[in-house]
Amino acid sequence: MKSLLREIDQARRRIRGGVLLSPCIESAALSDLTGMRIFCKLDNLQRTGSFKERGARNALLQLSGQQCARGVIAASAGNHALGLAYHGALLDIPVTVVMPRFAPLIKSSTCRRFGANVILHGETFAAAKAEAERLSQANGLRYIHGYDDPAIIAGQGTMGLEILEQVPEVEAVVVPIGGGGLIAGVAAALKARSPKLRVVGVESFRAPTFTKALRAGRPVKIPGATTLADGLSVPQIGAYAFTIAKSLVDEVVRVSEDEIALAILRILELEKSVVEGAGATPLAACLSGKLNHLRGKCVVLALCGGNIDPNILDRVIEKGLVVDGRLTRFTVVISDRPGGLAKLARLLAEAGASIKEVTHDRAFAGADVSTVNVFCTLETRDHRHVREIHRRLRQNGIRFC
Amino acid sequence: MKSLLREIDQARRRIRGGVLLSPCIESAALSDLTGMRIFCKLDNLQRTGSFKERGARNALLQLSGQQCARGVIAASAGNHALGLAYHGALLDIPVTVVMPRFAPLIKSSTCRRFGANVILHGETFAAAKAEAERLSQANGLRYIHGYDDPAIIAGQGTMGLEILEQVPEVEAVVVPIGGGGLIAGVAAALKARSPKLRVVGVESFRAPTFTKALRAGRPVKIPGATTLADGLSVPQIGAYAFTIAKSLVDEVVRVSEDEIALAILRILELEKSVVEGAGATPLAACLSGKLNHLRGKCVVLALCGGNIDPNILDRVIEKGLVVDGRLTRFTVVISDRPGGLAKLARLLAEAGASIKEVTHDRAFAGADVSTVNVFCTLETRDHRHVREIHRRLRQNGIRFC
Repeated sequence: MKSLLREIDQARRRIRGGVLLSPCIESAALSDLTGMRIFCKLDNLQRTGSFKERGARNALLQLSGQQCARGVIAASAGNHALGLAYHGALLDIPVTVVMPRFAPLIKSSTCRRFGANVILHGETFAAAKAEAERLSQANGLRYIHGYDDPAIIAGQGTMGLEILEQVPEVEAVVVPIGGGGLIAGVAAALKARSPKLRVVGVESFRAPTFTKALRAGRPVKIPGATTLADGLSVPQIGAYAFTIAKSLVDEVVRVSEDEIALAILRILELEKSVVEGAGATPLAACLSGKLNHLRGKCVVLALCGGNIDPNILDRVIEKGLVVDGRLTRFTVVISDRPGGLAKLARLLAEAGASIKEVTHDRAFAGADVSTVNVFCTLETRDHRHVREIHRRLRQNGIRFC
Repeated sequence: MKSLLREIDQARRRIRGGVLLSPCIESAALSDLTGMRIFCKLDNLQRTGSFKERGARNALLQLSGQQCARGVIAASAGNHALGLAYHGALLDIPVTVVMPRFAPLIKSSTCRRFGANVILHGETFAAAKAEAERLSQANGLRYIHGYDDPAIIAGQGTMGLEILEQVPEVEAVVVPIGGGGLIAGVAAALKARSPKLRVVGVESFRAPTFTKALRAGRPVKIPGATTLADGLSVPQIGAYAFTIAKSLVDEVVRVSEDEIALAILRILELEKSVVEGAGATPLAACLSGKLNHLRGKCVVLALCGGNIDPNILDRVIEKGLVVDGRLTRFTVVISDRPGGLAKLARLLAEAGASIKEVTHDRAFAGADVSTVNVFCTLETRDHRHVREIHRRLRQNGIRFC
């Protein structure tokens, strides 16, 4: 523990000036929403959109001259690859990243823009990793693991030191867990400096790497599953990260896909910040009701990354609006005679609903050929407004199906 | 000028601790994109999502004891109302805001949550304003104008002082113009302290309040028009604001709706920040090509607000993705025999396009009853990918219509 803190302190000095000392901002709106005093540590503002730069730069700065000349290699579908590629470019160290073929195009093309040698290989992360290890051996490239490496963990720990300086009154820090690198480093920094401070880990229900390892007493493989928090979706928690984290993390909360989606929308609307699924899990945990014992306390949320595909963000906003009652869909049956749709449109206008989409479908309205199905998507104010619209339509003889 | 700078300095001390000293962060990604060295002044992170709190708090803190007890009134459809309502609540000063009926529900309900007396009145902003002035007279409430008030302008000017401290090497600052309060205050602060610094104003093409006033030599009414930058859409620039700004602003750039939409998406993706239309105009100006003389210079963008409706953000993301070639729509004609759609779907999959929506429409396929129209919405990589998909479909006998 003591030596790890020293490593983190050294990492802090090492990466200073090269990695953003990201703001940690009090959010009155999220405080109102949760009943806690919430601060957001905005690591989504890092150049490549995530905390991964901390560890990547710290690892790169400890290479020997020969290793720097030969270069490094890693397997990653995302943020670790971006962090390495960017800092490799800054430090003039050749970087090779092996990405599985399903890696988002934007990430592979951004790595290439930073000058990295990008190899697309295999249909799974495991296949990409095996290829990276093979190339590491064959070409004498130093392999840099994304989360289970002491230099990486020490680098991530710098976030903990910054939080203590930026919010000295902090009582709890909520940190996402996937491979465990971030929480291991952050917990080590926090607990060494402030032992009474509470460290809360958050997992996706679909990637419970830490709770499974806690139960087994060692890292275990979890079934592969997709989650909005794709940054947390790793085969198993890192062995070194787990050893550190298991004795330092005070509690673990799991969050669902719906909770993550809603948290992304809340941060977007109330905090004006874009976070990826993993970065939204700390707020999702606070909103889930499972951290109500933190009410009234000063809580820092590690918003660890912001790399969400706009197409996915688009869907998340829609999903969140539906959960909020601000977007609603239903199918009604109206008369096929002239004026049927006009009547429906008038009733919707009078109810203050804004029409987003209307589909008028005559073919599948059922046995009664004098009726027609209309599929409506509406922008509404809240759930009460939705109920009021339903009531008003029913009162005027419009049937739901 | 000298006395205004003194006012701004006093405002700085007055509002300190009550208004966020918002971060001003260097953006490597936006720098790469524009060829300038870009810093973003994140006033979208203010509690109520915009810079308006600066002026509102400064004005409230200068009221007499009697005025504080009676309260204040304002007409606003948005951010000024939010800023006043919030700081009125903090300072225990009763606030009445008159909003036109079209004001977004989220803004009126948020003002109410802050304890403001919200009156919805009139179909236009002018009608709401007339009612606010009437109530001000009738009830002895101090009327606080949203932008044409010396205390408001001095408050907004504090953003300029902060920028100079946060980015001493700044060479140009790009500021949105609507009513002119922000640019008048910011330009006064910047030019007094650093006369060679360039102040660039940005207008929406649909609300050219400043250029119209410059041409006429005095504030003139502009035709009402909707714009994505709804915060800039005022009937005319403020008289006092114009007097200050006209001699201090070095140049004015106008931006289109498409440019604003794309800038919102770029800030979302690259800067991980949510901005409303007005807040995106500075980047829109940099991307428009009209500020290419600032290339290589150190430029601060005033991201003045983040209050964008998620439903609108949703549409903006879609629009931006279409402009980028990352979302595409077309209608093709395929055979109505079994296997027609299967062939199309296979070709799209082989081309690496992800299907978002497909509508198979047999009724309107034209004269040839053996064919059917298929309307496709696809997620694509870029414009080249879109062209490649078109080519591949054509080569396989699929006709576009």
